Amino acid sequence: MKFTVRQIATLLGGEVAGNDTLAITKLAKIEEGQPGDISFLSNLKYETHLYTTQASAVIVDRSFQPKKPVSSALIFVENSYSAFTQLLEEYYKLQSFARVGVEQPSYLGEGSQVGEQVYRGAFSYIGSNCQIGRNVKIYPHAYIGNGVRIGDNTIIFPGVRILDNCIIGQHCVIHPNAVIGSEGFGFAPQPDGSYKTIPQLGNVILEDNVNVGSNTTIDCATLGSTIIRQGAKLDNLIQIGHNVEIGKNTVIAAQTGISGSTKIGDNCVIAGQVGFAGHLTIANGTRVGAQSGVGKNVTEEGTSLNSSPAFGLKESMRSLAIFRKLPDLERRVSDLEKKK
Amino acid sequence: MKFTVRQIATLLGGEVAGNDTLAITKLAKIEEGQPGDISFLSNLKYETHLYTTQASAVIVDRSFQPKKPVSSALIFVENSYSAFTQLLEEYYKLQSFARVGVEQPSYLGEGSQVGEQVYRGAFSYIGSNCQIGRNVKIYPHAYIGNGVRIGDNTIIFPGVRILDNCIIGQHCVIHPNAVIGSEGFGFAPQPDGSYKTIPQLGNVILEDNVNVGSNTTIDCATLGSTIIRQGAKLDNLIQIGHNVEIGKNTVIAAQTGISGSTKIGDNCVIAGQVGFAGHLTIANGTRVGAQSGVGKNVTEEGTSLNSSPAFGLKESMRSLAIFRKLPDLERRVSDLEKKK
Amino acid sequence: MKFTVRQIATLLGGEVAGNDTLAITKLAKIEEGQPGDISFLSNLKYETHLYTTQASAVIVDRSFQPKKPVSSALIFVENSYSAFTQLLEEYYKLQSFARVGVEQPSYLGEGSQVGEQVYRGAFSYIGSNCQIGRNVKIYPHAYIGNGVRIGDNTIIFPGVRILDNCIIGQHCVIHPNAVIGSEGFGFAPQPDGSYKTIPQLGNVILEDNVNVGSNTTIDCATLGSTIIRQGAKLDNLIQIGHNVEIGKNTVIAAQTGISGSTKIGDNCVIAGQVGFAGHLTIANGTRVGAQSGVGKNVTEEGTSLNSSPAFGLKESMRSLAIFRKLPDLERRVSDLEKKK
Repeated sequence: MKFTVRQIATLLGGEVAGNDTLAITKLAKIEEGQPGDISFLSNLKYETHLYTTQASAVIVDRSFQPKKPVSSALIFVENSYSAFTQLLEEYYKLQSFARVGVEQPSYLGEGSQVGEQVYRGAFSYIGSNCQIGRNVKIYPHAYIGNGVRIGDNTIIFPGVRILDNCIIGQHCVIHPNAVIGSEGFGFAPQPDGSYKTIPQLGNVILEDNVNVGSNTTIDCATLGSTIIRQGAKLDNLIQIGHNVEIGKNTVIAAQTGISGSTKIGDNCVIAGQVGFAGHLTIANGTRVGAQSGVGKNVTEEGTSLNSSPAFGLKESMRSLAIFRKLPDLERRVSDLEKKK
Repeated sequence: MKFTVRQIATLLGGEVAGNDTLAITKLAKIEEGQPGDISFLSNLKYETHLYTTQASAVIVDRSFQPKKPVSSALIFVENSYSAFTQLLEEYYKLQSFARVGVEQPSYLGEGSQVGEQVYRGAFSYIGSNCQIGRNVKIYPHAYIGNGVRIGDNTIIFPGVRILDNCIIGQHCVIHPNAVIGSEGFGFAPQPDGSYKTIPQLGNVILEDNVNVGSNTTIDCATLGSTIIRQGAKLDNLIQIGHNVEIGKNTVIAAQTGISGSTKIGDNCVIAGQVGFAGHLTIANGTRVGAQSGVGKNVTEEGTSLNSSPAFGLKESMRSLAIFRKLPDLERRVSDLEKKK
Repeated sequence: MKFTVRQIATLLGGEVAGNDTLAITKLAKIEEGQPGDISFLSNLKYETHLYTTQASAVIVDRSFQPKKPVSSALIFVENSYSAFTQLLEEYYKLQSFARVGVEQPSYLGEGSQVGEQVYRGAFSYIGSNCQIGRNVKIYPHAYIGNGVRIGDNTIIFPGVRILDNCIIGQHCVIHPNAVIGSEGFGFAPQPDGSYKTIPQLGNVILEDNVNVGSNTTIDCATLGSTIIRQGAKLDNLIQIGHNVEIGKNTVIAAQTGISGSTKIGDNCVIAGQVGFAGHLTIANGTRVGAQSGVGKNVTEEGTSLNSSPAFGLKESMRSLAIFRKLPDLERRVSDLEKKK
């Protein structure tokens, strides 16, 4: 990005005080601003930084009046925070729209169709009979198996693996080295103590606006589909077992694991390093605290769980508080025994 | 796959009632069956689906008699469940046998030998002096370092990294982005507070019939070998430290971590998100519950452990039950103190 | 490596007893030594192996006198353990220095500068405007985005993903499939229950001598930098959130997760499978036990924490000891109630 302060002020509908010809190339926090950066001041707790920052420009609220001389150009807008957010988004779009076309060598299998404005990075692999939508970005080293469908405007980052027959919606973002549709953990014990592999022939469906974090793994279904519903957001290093279903707009933090055939409802908020047993049904709006272990169905919407094994959040907080004082409780019991 | 109902019935040794010329292309659950699908009915709890399914064919037990009209063709066999399982396996084999030959560009280092019927995907890398057995499938973006040996019929999925001098057995399956033989976490503290790397020169040995899940990491030994014994099954996102040994037919669920030099016995069943400290010896047939933390040797075969730190499963269940009622226990102690 | 026993003795400043013309190709533990191997005997607990090993040579202390005939050549040095360590390091350097030059096909974007003695493996990708230092090793399938800087002597293993604008110091080692600089987990809840992505425009800075384990993920900052300070060592499968800072010489074991904006001090030792909440400040020299959950700031240097939620190590050990005897404590309370 390279714009003048004037151009940015026009974009944001703001007025400039100071040098409006300076070139802006980057966004920065006010305390880290360097020449060429634009920053913002919203919370006046940080006002002192305004008088020391080296940022070329700072976006401020229209109501704001500096108390000391400022070396940066100031852009006055209605709401400095949302103006800066708007700028973040514009900058972000510019970056990702820059990637278009095909770098060589890259691999495209027979019978695969690729939409307009697609980016296919060097060493990317698309198998046979795939349908890749418009404006999809497939970064270097991404692997798309056979018979995969990917909707418009989806971003597939480097090293992502999407196995055969998976279906990815529109506006999805799949971060580096995530694995979608690998065979789940299905083994039938044999009389001699060994295990026989149960073939896993299903796929994974990601509906629209799903995010999948780096190095997250989503296993395909044994038959049918593992499904991640519209708007769900999965962080890094998460494990999703075969035939799992994650509800609409459910958010899951890093390193959580969900065992096979469990169905998580809509609008749930699951913290990091949580574990779910298999074959559970979890109601809409369930909230689960970090490192909890959920072993039972949740039937009531909006339940908050915590601890391992998980139970009600409030109850668990009380039990945990006494856990820390267990030596004291034991002493009180000893005292009672002596005084008897 | 494309077979007629008649061909499938012949394969399974069954008799057909209905249209035996329909084409079958996919396997499906009875409640999700679409035209072109074949399904099965074993548990009569699901019998109602038989009268509504759109599957072209359904496999049923010879003893079964429909109570209403059925639009699907029926294939009568001795045991519908095992017939369907047989079909799953056949279908699965068809899929993986389809991959043979070399896609370009791919890299093969000097002095490496590759067996017959091998698949080497585009952008796959095989270093120098490797021995790759017969019918091995090396998917795109797989990395095989120098001096690696891989046994017959093993599948190396996309993005797998096998570092120098590792030895992989026959009939192994290594899922996408798993890392085998990377340097373990060996650092010697120095007087100034920094750490010096301890060179890790060993390798990893996977015996026959081992499965390694997606994004699982297995560190090489400092000297000698980290060993995964015959028939062991590792799920996704597992960490295996340097010089660890995993026994024959031991099964480990996702996100479990095993610290350096620990030896896990044969036929163990380890649940997900479990942690093992280093330098432990765990007896054959040990079972460990999810999210447990094992910090001590297990000497007795068939022990069941649970909780963090782990102790006997039964004892831990009793302690956990009281943990949930700790506020109540504390109140009872308070009452006793008052009444004194 | 291929040296004679004589050449190795000269390197180590030792004297040989036995055949000094034998060729040595590998290092091994004394109990696993094969012809062509060199081993060492330091702890006399292992002396019996000296009389049975098939290693071609064994390094021993100058003060050592064999009690039985030995078939291996012996190399006498001042300190056999440190001599062997020296050999390990030499061998290790030889291996990694062997990789120099460019394998084809590989990708180098416009405006990128690459130093001398660099290795660029087949299918490696370097974007535009990167600066790659002297003697850097970029293995096959590594992805380096645009505007990335990498210092001298750093090793980037296969499948590593370094996203745009990240800065990697000198003498760093980044293990296979690690992801550096992917977008963190930033989503703003919308009135309709969906989430809007907050653009993540910052980068990741790795200072000098940092190690990053296999399949570890380090998210970029929203603005500014996620920073891993000099000499920090991160094991496999670790999650580092956006805007986190890890202090100098801090060591973190496998599968630990650190939520966004948390600052970990210098010289901390964090065990495996630990979780940190976001926006915390953790004092220098803090030690955290395995599977702990840290939810509060740590202000005192050298604090030891344990348990989930974490509190003082000693206190937690006492509480955990009573936890195991909770059924007994409950019985004692029942007895008191009866006797009242």
